[in-house]
Amino acid sequence: MTPVERAQMAMMLEVTAYPKPGNVDRCHDYKRTRLEHFLASAILARPALEKAAGGEGGLGEVLRESVRLTTVHGGGNTHFGAFILLIPLLRGGGIDGAIRAVESSTVDDALDFYRAFSLVKVRMLPGDPLDVSDPRALDTIREGGMTLLDVMAHSKEHDMVAREWVNGFALTRKAVGLLHGAGCGREGVVETFLRLLAAETDTFIVKEHGPAVAGEVRRRAGEILSGSGDLAAFDAECIARGINPGSTADIIIAAIFIALGEGWEWDCSRKE
Amino acid sequence: MTPVERAQMAMMLEVTAYPKPGNVDRCHDYKRTRLEHFLASAILARPALEKAAGGEGGLGEVLRESVRLTTVHGGGNTHFGAFILLIPLLRGGGIDGAIRAVESSTVDDALDFYRAFSLVKVRMLPGDPLDVSDPRALDTIREGGMTLLDVMAHSKEHDMVAREWVNGFALTRKAVGLLHGAGCGREGVVETFLRLLAAETDTFIVKEHGPAVAGEVRRRAGEILSGSGDLAAFDAECIARGINPGSTADIIIAAIFIALGEGWEWDCSRKE
Repeated sequence: MTPVERAQMAMMLEVTAYPKPGNVDRCHDYKRTRLEHFLASAILARPALEKAAGGEGGLGEVLRESVRLTTVHGGGNTHFGAFILLIPLLRGGGIDGAIRAVESSTVDDALDFYRAFSLVKVRMLPGDPLDVSDPRALDTIREGGMTLLDVMAHSKEHDMVAREWVNGFALTRKAVGLLHGAGCGREGVVETFLRLLAAETDTFIVKEHGPAVAGEVRRRAGEILSGSGDLAAFDAECIARGINPGSTADIIIAAIFIALGEGWEWDCSRKE
Repeated sequence: MTPVERAQMAMMLEVTAYPKPGNVDRCHDYKRTRLEHFLASAILARPALEKAAGGEGGLGEVLRESVRLTTVHGGGNTHFGAFILLIPLLRGGGIDGAIRAVESSTVDDALDFYRAFSLVKVRMLPGDPLDVSDPRALDTIREGGMTLLDVMAHSKEHDMVAREWVNGFALTRKAVGLLHGAGCGREGVVETFLRLLAAETDTFIVKEHGPAVAGEVRRRAGEILSGSGDLAAFDAECIARGINPGSTADIIIAAIFIALGEGWEWDCSRKE
């Protein structure tokens, strides 16, 4: 498998794994965003993933390209967070290279990243001087000479995906370890998803529902892992309440991408 | 969307559409062949699809390449029949060009096609002089100077996919018309699937279960379309009995590929 194919496989394997509390999966759609939208994005993102792997274009430019290619459908944003991780990982050929790649990011990368936001609706904190819906944000970036890494550092407190850029992809590393421990295929993905959800507050849930709900999700995921909670019921409740651990899913995609390159087996039927 | 992306989207949209009687779909796996295997094949087939579209290599060689790329997993044959249709359609840039492409097929294409069979288990009629498990079949092809089109003509009575090569892609054309009539998205794919299943005997079912069962499937599909049958119950029964209209699915993939190029809308949420 080429690195680009591994990235596409990671996007496919994450979204088809089930049951996953709250997210689109094999058995659940959102009203406007369906399984097919996620799978179409995995197919259609390829030219941007190729550029990332091939060293063509800046990180911000490639990120904008990936968002442009995958917002041609009516399903809205499917993989913005995943691309923020996959593109440096592809560019660097792994986590160590990705750390070097994000450290080399430029002000132009930051400007391209902000232009990518105009293609999708991404929830931001109110009053943020780098609010993407505020046209002055581009001036703030230019005047401050902020690189894309600086922008991610600015968001690290309230965005676990941005935080990966400044903490050496710590959660991605952690999820890779969980995945190797959890074993092959969709069952391994689901177990990793639950373990990460129990251990780390999903910042997407915090933005959408506040910290109390995010804490409740952590606790409930832990209960399922300890055998005292029911996964199917929790999944149904999350779907009904619109609770979507989207940032955890982004980390899982990055982790599957890395783990596939380290021999993690996506296909349990090969082991039978 | 490029033609290659349309082919990948067609493979994805066919397998995720549900409920489809008997086949792997979003809600059903076979024991060894799961949804992920079909989606992995759609991702991993790309280099062969690119060769088909780019005019690189003979039809048989590209077909063998497509099978080689998609049998790396443990799920077995997922798309052999679909590739038999998609590869000439990509090579010819549509149905008219595909007819010219298959008419230009050679003895080498036929030999490569037979070599592709060794990579998968495909059911043949017993006693067939072109039985793929018989090493003398290659001699029969060489001595008879049979092109790949001749091989398909030999199989046309008992294989509706091979028949497409010799009848001007008649069922593909029919399914394209049905798809345009049925409307957008997965509901359109399911309706087209049922209409084709009710109108045409699936030759894969004939090979696996005999003509009586194939006839029963046609009749039951017709009952569902007329409102007197229950789709979910029929689907469950087909899965339980191992009845798999696999050749109909191959035709549907080819039809989605063509229809996408003619403006058929895969994404109903764009119309809302």
